[in-house]
Amino acid sequence: MEVTRTLAKFLVSHKAADLPADVRHEGARSLLNWVACAVGASKHQTVKRALAALYDLSGPRDATILGRRERVDIFQAALLNGATSHTFDFDDTHMKTVIHPSGPVASAILALAEHRPVSGRDFLHAFLLGVEAECRIGLSVYPNHYDTGWHITATAGVFGAAAAAGRLLKLNEQQMVWALGTAATHACGIRETFGTMAKPLHPGIAARNGLMSALLAKKNVTSAEQGIEGRRGFAAILSTKFVPGEITEGLGKTWEILANSYKPYACGVVIHPAIDGCIQLRNEHKLKLEDIARIDLKVHPLVLELTGRRTPKAGLEGKFSVYHSCAAAILLGEGGEAAYSDAIVRNPRVIRLRDQVNAVVQAGVNEDQMHITLKLKDGRVLEKYIEHAVGSVARPMSDADLEAKFRALTKGILPAAQADKLIGLCWNVGKLKSAAEIARASVSARAKVKAKARKK
Amino acid sequence: MEVTRTLAKFLVSHKAADLPADVRHEGARSLLNWVACAVGASKHQTVKRALAALYDLSGPRDATILGRRERVDIFQAALLNGATSHTFDFDDTHMKTVIHPSGPVASAILALAEHRPVSGRDFLHAFLLGVEAECRIGLSVYPNHYDTGWHITATAGVFGAAAAAGRLLKLNEQQMVWALGTAATHACGIRETFGTMAKPLHPGIAARNGLMSALLAKKNVTSAEQGIEGRRGFAAILSTKFVPGEITEGLGKTWEILANSYKPYACGVVIHPAIDGCIQLRNEHKLKLEDIARIDLKVHPLVLELTGRRTPKAGLEGKFSVYHSCAAAILLGEGGEAAYSDAIVRNPRVIRLRDQVNAVVQAGVNEDQMHITLKLKDGRVLEKYIEHAVGSVARPMSDADLEAKFRALTKGILPAAQADKLIGLCWNVGKLKSAAEIARASVSARAKVKAKARKK
Repeated sequence: MEVTRTLAKFLVSHKAADLPADVRHEGARSLLNWVACAVGASKHQTVKRALAALYDLSGPRDATILGRRERVDIFQAALLNGATSHTFDFDDTHMKTVIHPSGPVASAILALAEHRPVSGRDFLHAFLLGVEAECRIGLSVYPNHYDTGWHITATAGVFGAAAAAGRLLKLNEQQMVWALGTAATHACGIRETFGTMAKPLHPGIAARNGLMSALLAKKNVTSAEQGIEGRRGFAAILSTKFVPGEITEGLGKTWEILANSYKPYACGVVIHPAIDGCIQLRNEHKLKLEDIARIDLKVHPLVLELTGRRTPKAGLEGKFSVYHSCAAAILLGEGGEAAYSDAIVRNPRVIRLRDQVNAVVQAGVNEDQMHITLKLKDGRVLEKYIEHAVGSVARPMSDADLEAKFRALTKGILPAAQADKLIGLCWNVGKLKSAAEIARASVSARAKVKAKARKK
Repeated sequence: MEVTRTLAKFLVSHKAADLPADVRHEGARSLLNWVACAVGASKHQTVKRALAALYDLSGPRDATILGRRERVDIFQAALLNGATSHTFDFDDTHMKTVIHPSGPVASAILALAEHRPVSGRDFLHAFLLGVEAECRIGLSVYPNHYDTGWHITATAGVFGAAAAAGRLLKLNEQQMVWALGTAATHACGIRETFGTMAKPLHPGIAARNGLMSALLAKKNVTSAEQGIEGRRGFAAILSTKFVPGEITEGLGKTWEILANSYKPYACGVVIHPAIDGCIQLRNEHKLKLEDIARIDLKVHPLVLELTGRRTPKAGLEGKFSVYHSCAAAILLGEGGEAAYSDAIVRNPRVIRLRDQVNAVVQAGVNEDQMHITLKLKDGRVLEKYIEHAVGSVARPMSDADLEAKFRALTKGILPAAQADKLIGLCWNVGKLKSAAEIARASVSARAKVKAKARKK
């Protein structure tokens, strides 16, 4: 069983010309969504505080924090872009593994692309290979690995970052084996941090460590030969389940990016059917918050496992409360960042309805499904069965939806014309002379002027 | 059960004046041994390659790589000093957990002490608190955690680094809870890498990540409240055993540093009784390699688990072969770095005897014990029972032994007079105006001149 080496062989030898058009297009969609999330959260307290800790310690300031004027070294850029892109919990989801694939991979290689010349074509190719590596490794251990408490976006993500960065560094097969081995020994990220600022750091930590794993391998820092499948390797230690074929079979024939999905709502995907349903019922029946006596949900077990917080106290925590999410959806008619401000989470009207939301697990309900029952104060009972939540693979956001999400997220940070330009760069990533253009175009001209003035 | 908070409270409130004298002295012994190992391995390929990958990416060059002229930022210094100090597998061992305590902690805070003023007294105090934190957390999950395949030096070490750095950064209680939570989500390092260059990186990775966890907490990047004991926290995910009392009981009353030990031999401690016994028999009977037909060992299970490599191919791998170690001990009469050069591992005479070494597990034999039987070609049978290997807690190296080890390791890297000066600084760490003096004194004046010339 040569898992790590088989994967490494594929990663170093696959040809960009062999990428199917739909795979390339899905890569661009993922990138567009990732940039939107990163720019959108670029003024958040999490990145401000992390930057306060790290900025003065930066090395060569080659790289951009998307949406911000400060420039930092490639490790910090990998860390901070990974963090911003996950701060709103609004990034992409590979539902088969609940991995958020883009954060760890794109954060690592966009930083690298600002440090050395990387064409858009090579960037997109490396991105797709990195996503493939992390999702396949995730599939080989999911769900046991996640159920144990590992944040799979971080633990599988570090392999994706190492694979993509390693490809751009032109690692040979042996070096790629080492890069994956060193990534394996960096696998970390625990779910106990969910609801705190440490959680969005995870894709950033994975990006930074994966990037470092690849850079070390390039200089022949050796590592395990069987980092993934070995007796004391990633799978044996971090999972009770391991299906090596998920990693090695059909490489280059099937692409996991095609199973990627994008969120219309700024919270964990398992709540999306609840929000979808509540918004539909609200709009169909022109409901106000005070019309509703009680909401009953029949849900997949993960809904309670991940988002069962009864009394969230701040915006970030609200994302882990299906109860809050329903109440906010009824009040606002949306599930974007606005639904997860501290003010909305602390709004007494929202809290009153939130406390009347009940969720029970029902067998046969999938992750993107839900039964929703609203009992109104006037005695009426309204029901909605969501078969596939909007944004799921079965009911995907369109390219236009993604552009609208991009504009909504970057509003107030980028002028509209610049947002449009950046959207165009993402769609055309495969043709860019330099992938770094995307990073540079993410900072508003006004912010750049400020940065220059600051330097004196 | 408030484990993380109880530990955090202790870490931020303990007073240096309450450190017993023997605890302070053992801290100085640990530090002396750590500096010797780091300087000794400072020219090794592992650090050369890692530096080739990272040097140009360094931030402010505040910090020293012990023994080397290049200066790097505090994260790289933490990483690389952690790595060099573990490269020879010659660093200290807390036998109750097989943690190598000094690497993660000292590497993090010596770098910090070059970045901001830290008195020797505060440094030693923070060091002892960090070691206490990591060893107690290690004890709470050992041996199950280690048996699973985790490299406990890395996974527990990151807490020690965060605790010590956090103390020097004067974190308040809440910030220390966050620092430990962020350390928990950084816990990584798998045993599959043993025998490769990635293994010695582990204490460095722990040092760097622990340092970053503390710096982030200082700027109020929040994290889990129960990073250690939570339902999805460190202990629940990374171990099948958890005894919280090992962390919370007797804080400030007992000190794990008193159970620290120092190696006379440059390899895993579980082989030390074998080397000790072989050297004794060799010297008592004036044996040559060719006199011996066969060596039989009765051993603790960890000997085969950790050091059962039958056919090591390079020096680093030889450290994981009890077979090679016996043969080299008979040839050389020692178990220092000389016994683990590539040349000795590939020496045909050594290989011939190595292949005649047999080891079987015997119940009742402890980690620092071994039965050794030598069958000579002339028919004689020699036996030796090692009750406690030299360097174990029961038969510790003396201060003079440690100084001799220091001089042997730093020979050829530091002039003798400078080695003596550095030894003096380590013994007197508690009285130094600035702990950074230790780092600066580890680089030979000649190397410094070279570095200046290089800068032009």
